Amino acid sequence: MGPSAMRILGIDCGTERTGYGVIDSDGSDHQLVLAGVIEPLHGRGLELRLLEIAEKLREVIRDETPDSAAVEGVFYAVNVKTALKLSHARGVALLVVAEAGLELGEYSPLEVKLSVVGHGRATKQQVQMMIHSLLRLETAIESEDACDALAVAVCHATHVQMKKRLQRSAS
Amino acid sequence: MGPSAMRILGIDCGTERTGYGVIDSDGSDHQLVLAGVIEPLHGRGLELRLLEIAEKLREVIRDETPDSAAVEGVFYAVNVKTALKLSHARGVALLVVAEAGLELGEYSPLEVKLSVVGHGRATKQQVQMMIHSLLRLETAIESEDACDALAVAVCHATHVQMKKRLQRSAS
Repeated sequence: MGPSAMRILGIDCGTERTGYGVIDSDGSDHQLVLAGVIEPLHGRGLELRLLEIAEKLREVIRDETPDSAAVEGVFYAVNVKTALKLSHARGVALLVVAEAGLELGEYSPLEVKLSVVGHGRATKQQVQMMIHSLLRLETAIESEDACDALAVAVCHATHVQMKKRLQRSAS
Repeated sequence: MGPSAMRILGIDCGTERTGYGVIDSDGSDHQLVLAGVIEPLHGRGLELRLLEIAEKLREVIRDETPDSAAVEGVFYAVNVKTALKLSHARGVALLVVAEAGLELGEYSPLEVKLSVVGHGRATKQQVQMMIHSLLRLETAIESEDACDALAVAVCHATHVQMKKRLQRSAS
């Protein structure tokens, strides 16, 4: 991995589960550092579930010291009630990123698919397969949410690298 | 004010502004402690605006040491994009409340109007007038968002008191 390698935290906010994934990447070579999923207990108040998400994300940032973070934009297409719940978790994730002083990249689901699979009509399964291939994973990551978090991290890595290349060729 | 007085932080989350208000109340007698509005700078990233909201709410909790907090539920009726933005701020507010270990009350706009004005068709102006009257304010609170935050705090105070009375009469 080149000297321009950076460590990226990808976060995939959901209503029930929030996936996270940390990678080291120079934009073309990606390595898994850590991935997991936060699944707060049902039946607790929303505020306590949000607290659980915040505490785990803070722990990951403290332990893995990423350089930047990446999240997906909010889907307007999904069910409104789902989008509202998701936005509560997303607000907390963005806060934790800001508290840690990390730069934040936001990408649409289309951008994530394009950069991971190469076309925008990719299925969830194709994204997962590509993540396993790109990160040369020997053991499968079971959690779809952790995979989605890794996908947005990979998307961020390729975008940052692309931007750097464009700046170099412009100067 | 009776020995059962409690200090309540009301929070009114919005997309552009978040109102807050602290009252001391025994359920019928209410006293203003503090009210204000957080209006993060435009043009900053959402994560930095959320950080500003969190930091100010934490400061209010640290300085005024409320016993509990109250917020309005999310309106499903409003514009979806607005509701999503509001939910990011609301997620952060709920997190800060949970971090401080405060009990949380959630009320619908209807419940707030009923407990402050006495009927559910009350206008925003009527709610504001009643808040000024109930808190015996000599100088007007300009911010609508601060007034809304005080209204949900008053609503919480009356609900807690009602619950206590019901428990006493049941035992």
